[in-house]
Amino acid sequence: MAVTYELIKRCSKTGARAGRLHTPHGSFDTPIFMPVGTQATVKAITPDELKDMGAGIILSNTYHLYLRPGHELVAEAGGLHKFMNWDRGILTDSGGFQVFSLGPLRKITEEGVTFRSHIDGSKHFLSPEKATEIQMALGSDIIMAFDECVSYPADHDYVRKSTERTSRWAQRCKEAHTRTDDQALFGIVQGGMYKDLRTLSAQELVALDLPGYAVGGLSVGEPKALMYEMLEHTIPLLPEGKPRYLMGVGTPDCLVEGVLHGVDMFDCVFPTRVARNGTVMTRSGRLVVKNAEYARDFRPLDETCGCYACRNFSRAYIRHLFKTNEILGLRLTTIHNLHFLLNFMREMRTAILEDNFVDFRQEFLAQYKAR
Amino acid sequence: MAVTYELIKRCSKTGARAGRLHTPHGSFDTPIFMPVGTQATVKAITPDELKDMGAGIILSNTYHLYLRPGHELVAEAGGLHKFMNWDRGILTDSGGFQVFSLGPLRKITEEGVTFRSHIDGSKHFLSPEKATEIQMALGSDIIMAFDECVSYPADHDYVRKSTERTSRWAQRCKEAHTRTDDQALFGIVQGGMYKDLRTLSAQELVALDLPGYAVGGLSVGEPKALMYEMLEHTIPLLPEGKPRYLMGVGTPDCLVEGVLHGVDMFDCVFPTRVARNGTVMTRSGRLVVKNAEYARDFRPLDETCGCYACRNFSRAYIRHLFKTNEILGLRLTTIHNLHFLLNFMREMRTAILEDNFVDFRQEFLAQYKAR
Repeated sequence: MAVTYELIKRCSKTGARAGRLHTPHGSFDTPIFMPVGTQATVKAITPDELKDMGAGIILSNTYHLYLRPGHELVAEAGGLHKFMNWDRGILTDSGGFQVFSLGPLRKITEEGVTFRSHIDGSKHFLSPEKATEIQMALGSDIIMAFDECVSYPADHDYVRKSTERTSRWAQRCKEAHTRTDDQALFGIVQGGMYKDLRTLSAQELVALDLPGYAVGGLSVGEPKALMYEMLEHTIPLLPEGKPRYLMGVGTPDCLVEGVLHGVDMFDCVFPTRVARNGTVMTRSGRLVVKNAEYARDFRPLDETCGCYACRNFSRAYIRHLFKTNEILGLRLTTIHNLHFLLNFMREMRTAILEDNFVDFRQEFLAQYKAR
Repeated sequence: MAVTYELIKRCSKTGARAGRLHTPHGSFDTPIFMPVGTQATVKAITPDELKDMGAGIILSNTYHLYLRPGHELVAEAGGLHKFMNWDRGILTDSGGFQVFSLGPLRKITEEGVTFRSHIDGSKHFLSPEKATEIQMALGSDIIMAFDECVSYPADHDYVRKSTERTSRWAQRCKEAHTRTDDQALFGIVQGGMYKDLRTLSAQELVALDLPGYAVGGLSVGEPKALMYEMLEHTIPLLPEGKPRYLMGVGTPDCLVEGVLHGVDMFDCVFPTRVARNGTVMTRSGRLVVKNAEYARDFRPLDETCGCYACRNFSRAYIRHLFKTNEILGLRLTTIHNLHFLLNFMREMRTAILEDNFVDFRQEFLAQYKAR
């Protein structure tokens, strides 16, 4: 199998687990956070900077790469790894989330989705077969099944029909996927906020015996408590010996709860997106470095952090860079936020290995102010 | 003296010379190009990236730093070096060029210049004393006298009056400059495109016995031949034992001619500005990486270059980054252009040391297409 999961340690009190994922582009420790490189680049930083902060796998986007520069061009370049000069793991999503986000610009049928490009309005068609073909051309280590990510709220009848279609689409993806020697196809459990549909979805996908499973359709606007409830219900339905990936989650509080319930992999644009707006992640919450209070604050962004930004520059300097629209500002906050999150994942893993994840979570929640 | 020039080798056939400049923040080889860090950052790159490409001294701007974040704040941070985490040389211009560029927003008197900020329209006053005070607070290694950079064309009468005032202002800067232990004040020769006024300006400034001299008021829209003529006339009027700096020049052809006439130091926003628009400097001219012809070109930007961008990424990838407005694109072209220019200066220096600068210049001109 192209991608395998090795379970190393289970928390004695919760669902949390520490493991290791083996891919054609290296092995990495789990639980892990995957920085998002939508258009074949993690915004504002280099592959070397990603390696310096210990990133083992990144996420890139089928929808965006299909439109620009085109998957044939990426294949001609020798695949996505070579094109962007990243020799560690890459997971690509299927494009489903993006085309469904286009709203009135797309139309769904059993066959697939017709949509108009957000760039030039040109008409395109994505289907399970097409999404799989594109991802095979990109050559990512992990590819995702083409699914519908149902928006929130949605009624039971709609979600049931959509979830059943997502299962049929997953089957078609599996049939279309021929690059099984160096690529793993993961299924995506949907089912909205309905436990019976989550159960149905998980059962149908597990029956396909795919090398890994994602939980999709969460963190789409529902209350956090509801997301955690769905997670608690869904994760135990997935096979223990395979990796579990919670899509689109990247705030520290949600990461802790995801790990608590047994998730191994996460991705989210949150840390990089807020960084570009001058928001810095810390253990106690967030620091908006543009604020006037930091104008003469010559301390690093985070006094406990060892990232390149915190080792070399002050809040006052980084604030100056943001006030003058200098690119170095958002480079430094991006580096800090990703370093912070990757390190946070490593700390959780250590806590699991030492079997004190429950204490770790308590201490974290006591000082973290979610917003 | 805070800054001294060591003449190492003179070309036997031209005015070109190789030397070494000693500053409180290290010594560096001349002729040298100074990357421009207008707002306490060379746009898009880090101090470490500058060091990797061998930059020894950068230029920053009094006008911009006075407005944001303010020179008192920089002083409070421990000076500009510490504020921006750059421990090599810094030269600051006096702000004269910027306030004179404001056009209708400024008013000149013998005392100084009243101007309105380009940011918020607030009213400010810069004078020789004020410009010197600001630069002392910034703590740069080399500070520039407050001058008027006359626009082109201008009539003899106006240029004469302006040049005489620039000499009086230089005298006032010298009197105001008390930080002579770790800072050198350079004078700026003006005189427009009039040889008699260039002679007058040089004589009056040389009489002040300053530690270095710049040639200002060139590369302001005049034909290149006229600029070279002014340079050929002016440089011999300056003392041999002191550094000579040609302000605002940074295209390869002009750099070669500047060196030919005996210039030691240069600065220009050109390499970094065009980089951000996707234009790449090469020995044969320029390459516009956004162009369609590079979409499937998997060669590096410049096959003879050893910079980080050329070692790791293709034209096709960098074009993709520009087409999708990704920051990494302009980071890579900025790194390439600065690496190219700094390396070009080192090659000229080697040619001077080996006394074959004339051949070097011939070979360069034969393959370079100026635009």
